Amino acid sequence: MQLYSYFRSSAAYRVRIALNLKGLPYDYVPVHLLKDGGQQRGESYVTLNPQGLVPTFVDDELIIGQSLATIEYLDETHPEPSLLPGSPADRARIRDMALMVACDIHPINNLRILKYLKHTLQVDDDAKDAWYRHWTEEGLRALESRVANDRGTGAYCHGDVPTLADICLVPQMANARRFNCDLSGMPTLVRIDEACRALPAFEKAAPQNQPDAE
Amino acid sequence: MQLYSYFRSSAAYRVRIALNLKGLPYDYVPVHLLKDGGQQRGESYVTLNPQGLVPTFVDDELIIGQSLATIEYLDETHPEPSLLPGSPADRARIRDMALMVACDIHPINNLRILKYLKHTLQVDDDAKDAWYRHWTEEGLRALESRVANDRGTGAYCHGDVPTLADICLVPQMANARRFNCDLSGMPTLVRIDEACRALPAFEKAAPQNQPDAE
Repeated sequence: MQLYSYFRSSAAYRVRIALNLKGLPYDYVPVHLLKDGGQQRGESYVTLNPQGLVPTFVDDELIIGQSLATIEYLDETHPEPSLLPGSPADRARIRDMALMVACDIHPINNLRILKYLKHTLQVDDDAKDAWYRHWTEEGLRALESRVANDRGTGAYCHGDVPTLADICLVPQMANARRFNCDLSGMPTLVRIDEACRALPAFEKAAPQNQPDAE
Repeated sequence: MQLYSYFRSSAAYRVRIALNLKGLPYDYVPVHLLKDGGQQRGESYVTLNPQGLVPTFVDDELIIGQSLATIEYLDETHPEPSLLPGSPADRARIRDMALMVACDIHPINNLRILKYLKHTLQVDDDAKDAWYRHWTEEGLRALESRVANDRGTGAYCHGDVPTLADICLVPQMANARRFNCDLSGMPTLVRIDEACRALPAFEKAAPQNQPDAE
């Protein structure tokens, strides 16, 4: 298995956590999003991943770009430990929280969006940072409402083992800190994020611990 | 089962297609995104859906906001016909295509984003429409590359039965037409979209056929 990754990509970070939780070894192939005008836009990479986005996961003939599709695949092919444990209702709650991050926070703040704001719409740096914080804080507040005082929540987003929801939460929280988002109204998310980052699988997947970290 | 929906919401449209493909009856609860300053922002709705977004799916005590989490739940609880048929690799390809739309096209062009562009960033209508077309066309071009000349593609995005990928594609194509996106380089997507819309389950789920259609 190979993972085309960039240390700071939070979608790649998710897949790294999942691979580590499953105990699966993989080859790390760095793709630098800022060098050479963006190596993810290069011809050879786009052949692999027509979106020109990181990560790309390769398992023999299978090539997957989307991080959540990759993690679902890993969970189906290597069921233990389960990243989507429990009943269909449990799994629905886990996926719901994961997608709140993966659909409605992260893509809106991705590098390509920030570049478009800056270069095409001529938005200044303050307004660009405000955009980032607006969508991140609004999204995380909604997620906090989902986990706070819900009997499904445990040490982690769902129960007492890390799941797909935590895998999406932790990279987003790292981004939130990097962009100075206000996390003061989100005590449950802060607690869960800290609990996750204390686990070796999450720690090993963190941006600063990747071979291409700067 | 209840679905809080708005006729034009493409995330709600996805869930309607899935319910129809499964042959499941449901109560349609309209939520008007433009009336009353947006009914999805009202107190009673936000209690149900802290994101303040449409749809919300309710099945007894289970409440799910995210459309893909809802559809996965429906597929697990009502397995026939499968919306994610085949091997883990088949399912990965289907989810990959679905998420290309659900993560990287749709949320960037959602109503709340367009409003922020207009009201907070003071972007004019031409630039707002260009934004819409840019992300839709870029995303659909990548999806066209994924389906064109791929042996996994059949009458539909994956094989000869409609799957989660088609459920995401069709509402996005409807939006693309509504915003005059250029679909000329996407013959495979156009063909698949037409094949899907000929099916009663898709037709019945279309915006113009909802009780709140205007």
